Amino acid sequence: MRDSNHRRVANVGAIQGETSVANSLIEARRELSLANRIVANEGVIDAFGHVSMRHPDNPRRYLLSRSRAPELVAPEDFIEYGLDSQPVREPSVTQYSERVIHGEIYKARPEVMSVCHHHCAAFMPLLATGTDYVPVFHLGAIGGIKPPFWDQHDEFGDTNMLVCKLEEGASLARALGPHWMVLMKRHGVTVACTSVRDCVFRSVYSARNAEYQVQALAIGGAIASLSPGETQLASQIVATTTGLTRSWEYWSMRVAKAGGAAAKPANKPAKPVRATSKPTSKPKRAPKARRR
Amino acid sequence: MRDSNHRRVANVGAIQGETSVANSLIEARRELSLANRIVANEGVIDAFGHVSMRHPDNPRRYLLSRSRAPELVAPEDFIEYGLDSQPVREPSVTQYSERVIHGEIYKARPEVMSVCHHHCAAFMPLLATGTDYVPVFHLGAIGGIKPPFWDQHDEFGDTNMLVCKLEEGASLARALGPHWMVLMKRHGVTVACTSVRDCVFRSVYSARNAEYQVQALAIGGAIASLSPGETQLASQIVATTTGLTRSWEYWSMRVAKAGGAAAKPANKPAKPVRATSKPTSKPKRAPKARRR
Amino acid sequence: MRDSNHRRVANVGAIQGETSVANSLIEARRELSLANRIVANEGVIDAFGHVSMRHPDNPRRYLLSRSRAPELVAPEDFIEYGLDSQPVREPSVTQYSERVIHGEIYKARPEVMSVCHHHCAAFMPLLATGTDYVPVFHLGAIGGIKPPFWDQHDEFGDTNMLVCKLEEGASLARALGPHWMVLMKRHGVTVACTSVRDCVFRSVYSARNAEYQVQALAIGGAIASLSPGETQLASQIVATTTGLTRSWEYWSMRVAKAGGAAAKPANKPAKPVRATSKPTSKPKRAPKARRR
Amino acid sequence: MRDSNHRRVANVGAIQGETSVANSLIEARRELSLANRIVANEGVIDAFGHVSMRHPDNPRRYLLSRSRAPELVAPEDFIEYGLDSQPVREPSVTQYSERVIHGEIYKARPEVMSVCHHHCAAFMPLLATGTDYVPVFHLGAIGGIKPPFWDQHDEFGDTNMLVCKLEEGASLARALGPHWMVLMKRHGVTVACTSVRDCVFRSVYSARNAEYQVQALAIGGAIASLSPGETQLASQIVATTTGLTRSWEYWSMRVAKAGGAAAKPANKPAKPVRATSKPTSKPKRAPKARRR
Repeated sequence: MRDSNHRRVANVGAIQGETSVANSLIEARRELSLANRIVANEGVIDAFGHVSMRHPDNPRRYLLSRSRAPELVAPEDFIEYGLDSQPVREPSVTQYSERVIHGEIYKARPEVMSVCHHHCAAFMPLLATGTDYVPVFHLGAIGGIKPPFWDQHDEFGDTNMLVCKLEEGASLARALGPHWMVLMKRHGVTVACTSVRDCVFRSVYSARNAEYQVQALAIGGAIASLSPGETQLASQIVATTTGLTRSWEYWSMRVAKAGGAAAKPANKPAKPVRATSKPTSKPKRAPKARRR
Repeated sequence: MRDSNHRRVANVGAIQGETSVANSLIEARRELSLANRIVANEGVIDAFGHVSMRHPDNPRRYLLSRSRAPELVAPEDFIEYGLDSQPVREPSVTQYSERVIHGEIYKARPEVMSVCHHHCAAFMPLLATGTDYVPVFHLGAIGGIKPPFWDQHDEFGDTNMLVCKLEEGASLARALGPHWMVLMKRHGVTVACTSVRDCVFRSVYSARNAEYQVQALAIGGAIASLSPGETQLASQIVATTTGLTRSWEYWSMRVAKAGGAAAKPANKPAKPVRATSKPTSKPKRAPKARRR
Repeated sequence: MRDSNHRRVANVGAIQGETSVANSLIEARRELSLANRIVANEGVIDAFGHVSMRHPDNPRRYLLSRSRAPELVAPEDFIEYGLDSQPVREPSVTQYSERVIHGEIYKARPEVMSVCHHHCAAFMPLLATGTDYVPVFHLGAIGGIKPPFWDQHDEFGDTNMLVCKLEEGASLARALGPHWMVLMKRHGVTVACTSVRDCVFRSVYSARNAEYQVQALAIGGAIASLSPGETQLASQIVATTTGLTRSWEYWSMRVAKAGGAAAKPANKPAKPVRATSKPTSKPKRAPKARRR
Repeated sequence: MRDSNHRRVANVGAIQGETSVANSLIEARRELSLANRIVANEGVIDAFGHVSMRHPDNPRRYLLSRSRAPELVAPEDFIEYGLDSQPVREPSVTQYSERVIHGEIYKARPEVMSVCHHHCAAFMPLLATGTDYVPVFHLGAIGGIKPPFWDQHDEFGDTNMLVCKLEEGASLARALGPHWMVLMKRHGVTVACTSVRDCVFRSVYSARNAEYQVQALAIGGAIASLSPGETQLASQIVATTTGLTRSWEYWSMRVAKAGGAAAKPANKPAKPVRATSKPTSKPKRAPKARRR
């Protein structure tokens, strides 16, 4: 306060910058919390499974809830992890054991901004029989044609099936390769995306497609999949139409109706997050609001 | 006010006429909004799909919601379109991309007053395998015996599967032909009807029938369809019994219970709409309430 | 009032008798209303289908709601019918078209006190394929082993499939014969019972059994039905255990939770109704409360 | 009060001990009530089926609700039974008829602290066809590989299928043997566990696994079960991760949302119960709160 006018202006700017970063993080946490609640409310996840996001201001970190059923996850439940899936600060709460799924994918794929791991019922018949996923309608194109399978037993033998070790996560990330969905045989599914909302969209509509495909298989007819060209074009629907905005509003309202959302749904997506986003001006002394 | 008695009476008449037209439109919008919410609440539609109606006062126009999940559609969300599927006034809100489905059917079929396009889960196994729909109980007769299939790929090759171009909509309308339901392979279903309530009834009960048929196929027995004569007679149930009134009251109350209806359900259908309805007395200067 | 003491006492007695009859009827209407709401809430019935009861004071009459979805039926919605399925008084409201199903069964089977007609989804795969119902668990025994099938087409050729004519109802009642459930091919199910609560129990648990049987058929294994001896013994569970009381409390609370019950569930069944119950003392001038 | 200081201290100690025992029992009843509501709310149990626990202070006794649908069971509904399945005090309320299922398992297996008997829909296709249960994902490991089948008919011929006699319960307990789940052909399932929360977890996730397995069988592919090693390791997840705490919080909140929980969910499990827990200091004159 006793400083020169110049310094004071600079200070105000710094504070505003920090505030803006903090606000963006608050918004990101709110959106990620809602994302968790949506996938739960839409039946993709029950007590197990989780949606994470890359940290909006630091691509070497990601946010994942403390050990809690996604339907209950609140904005303040997120823990900040390094890409080694170790918490930046040792939390006083319990953690998910399968967080390496997230960390290893963020490490291997810089363009991935959000990851969802789940055991959705719709997929289980495919995962139990090793049946390939194919898109049977346009919205299912988001899962790709025959996305890769991964079986933990192949590389690690008998385990408790949880993906807890760094090498297990790394193996899964290798299986994912350049794809956006990997099927974990006799376990579940992991979906990677370029934003939190895309991640929810891909998780929900690949699950719907799996449900329809399983029922189609049950009636025994030959399944007419989308062609590679159709799959490629239809997988862009989320980016080229108003469908994602429409879905997000719909899902948010359904969460609210189900009594699960304290906060009203955000009108627009949280600040776009890029792996190449420039570092904040004060990386060493991050504003308080960024941690808890 | 300073005019002759005669003129004032005439004026009052004109105002009353306009008011009555406006009221009928308000009622129509309310009914169409409820129709959208019902098909959503009954599981026929999720975030994608829509119910439209031909404009009650102008058969060359139709009403379709702005881009919004049907469960959330309110009476003020409808945009007025010409049969070329262009908005009469450029709206400030986003629009559905597949509106040509509606426009081209209204263009081709003057007796069609309402159209529903959806991707109901119950139909997807049939659409994924190209299995014909057959009525397996009386209420399913409303879908006809083996209604036509349409596959966008046949005429247009690889697309993103959305029916967005006029020629795509026209192709679909040709496939529909004189029928009331057309199955869109690897995509969804489009239903045409002579009123909004009929459209909801046909959409819901054809979906129920599809669900039962798929389960019957899954147990492998030979399906005993209704005969052509039975199908013809049973498809009239909606017109000849109290079933439609009963269903509408039931579905409206379910929407209300689910917390989705702001307005209380109308006691009677909105003013019957005919393609041949005489034009309003003042087509050039439509009352304000008709647009927004 | 000016009469002798003796006469006044007699009068009071007459009034009390009438009141008691009226109370029993009020209770019966309340129970029948709840029965309709329960079968709807348990997914046995949607907008179509109905539960009736024989009139508690007159075995030549029965009570059936006006044309209304069962989930909405209130105690005052019941119309009194003769066994010819004609209303005792011409009602000012619309009526169900399939009431002869009820009337003809009450005519043919004096011990039947309640009838439910429905198109429950669980049964449709059996009805669409003509697959026999068999009990696959103890509570399914209530439907019997391979209850009779009836197909309206056999006797009446092409119809709209609704059972509206007396001869159609009589044909169905003949198919039912001494059984308690008849499967109406490509249409639905009719269940007969000795009380309203039994009727709900039989409707719900035969539907659960059908659901399980259909899923068992879908996985292709040989179905191990209950033996005839087990079926006979297990079908008595409802009469010999506390299961019916427990179910009724459970279903009533579920209706209440779903926001569907204005009245609190009755603690005990309505006055037992027997076809042989002695006529009321004043059959000619039934108390007002009995009609509406 | 007029006694020596020493005696008074001793008295206070005794009172505190009693209170603590009583509190532990109150907590146990609350947890067992919630357990019943959870399995109901998660669709494992409807009006029939029950969850019991061994008495926290007396391994020769167990607690089981009076005859009531589990979704409605309150802490004060539990009756205290001896291992002969006779009530310690004759209750004024009706009792479940199948309580010997619980008593005979507690008698045969001292380490079993909680038992759940149910007829969950997910299992019925397996039970109707005698198809072996296999774990198709890690959480299904809790049911074991091919747990034993029991058919009441084998030993007892035609019955009403209810397990009501001591010898029927003992036969079932023998079939269970050292396993944690026994499949009752053409009837239901019984699950044994080392705590109430484990029992809920095992009941819910074995049911989910059965659902997935049945759907996998319906699409006809060869099922890839967990290996014996994986099954062994994955069945420990509940004991070695935060999954049980997470699930319990999730299920409790779902019960609360469904309007079924008067009490707020306990933050921690009720006092661990061991068959070897030392008897209370005053077995002869149990504190009032322990009985009702």
